[in-house]
Amino acid sequence: MLAPSQRDRISVVLVSPRNPLNIGAVARAMANFGFSHLTAVSPYEPHWREARSAVGSTELLNVAKESPTLSEAVRDCTLVLGTGTLTHRKAEQPVILLDQLAPIVTRELDQPSGRIALIFGPEKHGLTREDLSFCHHLVEIPTDPRQPSMNLGQAAAVCLYELAIRSSPPAEAPGRPPSPDTPRPTSGNLDVLAGLIQQVMLASNYSPRNMQAANEHDLRLMLRRLHLTPADQRRALGLFRRILRRLQALHLS
Amino acid sequence: MLAPSQRDRISVVLVSPRNPLNIGAVARAMANFGFSHLTAVSPYEPHWREARSAVGSTELLNVAKESPTLSEAVRDCTLVLGTGTLTHRKAEQPVILLDQLAPIVTRELDQPSGRIALIFGPEKHGLTREDLSFCHHLVEIPTDPRQPSMNLGQAAAVCLYELAIRSSPPAEAPGRPPSPDTPRPTSGNLDVLAGLIQQVMLASNYSPRNMQAANEHDLRLMLRRLHLTPADQRRALGLFRRILRRLQALHLS
Repeated sequence: MLAPSQRDRISVVLVSPRNPLNIGAVARAMANFGFSHLTAVSPYEPHWREARSAVGSTELLNVAKESPTLSEAVRDCTLVLGTGTLTHRKAEQPVILLDQLAPIVTRELDQPSGRIALIFGPEKHGLTREDLSFCHHLVEIPTDPRQPSMNLGQAAAVCLYELAIRSSPPAEAPGRPPSPDTPRPTSGNLDVLAGLIQQVMLASNYSPRNMQAANEHDLRLMLRRLHLTPADQRRALGLFRRILRRLQALHLS
Repeated sequence: MLAPSQRDRISVVLVSPRNPLNIGAVARAMANFGFSHLTAVSPYEPHWREARSAVGSTELLNVAKESPTLSEAVRDCTLVLGTGTLTHRKAEQPVILLDQLAPIVTRELDQPSGRIALIFGPEKHGLTREDLSFCHHLVEIPTDPRQPSMNLGQAAAVCLYELAIRSSPPAEAPGRPPSPDTPRPTSGNLDVLAGLIQQVMLASNYSPRNMQAANEHDLRLMLRRLHLTPADQRRALGLFRRILRRLQALHLS
């Protein structure tokens, strides 16, 4: 079972939630399982206000953050987990069944700098392909194929129950050796690197205009697949900065 | 993970549900995790009708049963599990944390005659002491003590996820030996025995009038604690029938 100090490093992120009852239900499940950090990405304002002012609304909803983009909302996280089902598409990142998530969460929280975001999409269609490109893994709740789609509040309750109960307490706790120290760059650091590589792609004429969006998408996914250490990431930043400067110099000469 | 044939031997029972949205949410979670038998005990009729006729209501809600009493609703079950939290009282039966429930469910479903009921109380106050006296175990969801009380639809989702995913497939499946055959009497059989013992209590002047309800309650709990086999139960029935007849004969003589 997770310790409070570990739960404190897990955020729930709702992308464009609409139904105030669902927002309230997610907040309630979070309180039930001892989580307190909620961020809404570009929520529908009237309903977000309504959810926050509802009778019986939890304290954590009142201090919840708002963020214009998902990139911004998960900036300080080292492990970003999207949720959803795969009925209509093939995932572009590793898929993990919810009941097999605990070791991954435990390992991430063993890193002193590890921070996790658990992301839920809008009620109607779930996370988009673009949203999922910010995720290291897609977490799938093992539902019945005949009725795979869960209500938002219920999906959050099931995921938070699993995380809170089945992940392990801190490694200093008796009986479990600490896992090796392999810190990961934050989502924000990866976005900085991706931005630089995109500039290089443009400057080197790698990306024709009609491929720029697709290349940006694939690059984001690739960077999250690579398990870069923060040192790898700094090295790559240094290299691409140098390449960019050289390309620009050649262009000017 | 439970096989469909095992899920088919688990019923969800809602005691006096009121909110149609909650009833719909329980039905949806059942469909998500492949369960199909729902019984409502004395539901509030207008809201029960509303839940059943709601847009998007699941098929299982349309074929759900109604029952006047909890005793009647769980009559054919050999393991009755009540749900709730213990913030305000001490349980009168063994308490099991939800995440430790799987082996008990697996063992019961290994019995060819095993049938399980999972009971949820009304939204406001949960199951009463009387309701719980029909339960072999009280299942507690390990929630945060500062916010222990879950929404009905979310509690059902979490319990059904745990049952569906963490209980084991049939014993014939490779790698698991069948558990020894120890069938249990159904809840209805225990009620028949309890009724007979109560008659004996009266006929023998064991129960003064003001103690009859309390004795009935304690007897119900005790019979569920005893792990009677069906043969034990038949033997006890035979004995108490004989005792009753003898007491009545003496009374007439």
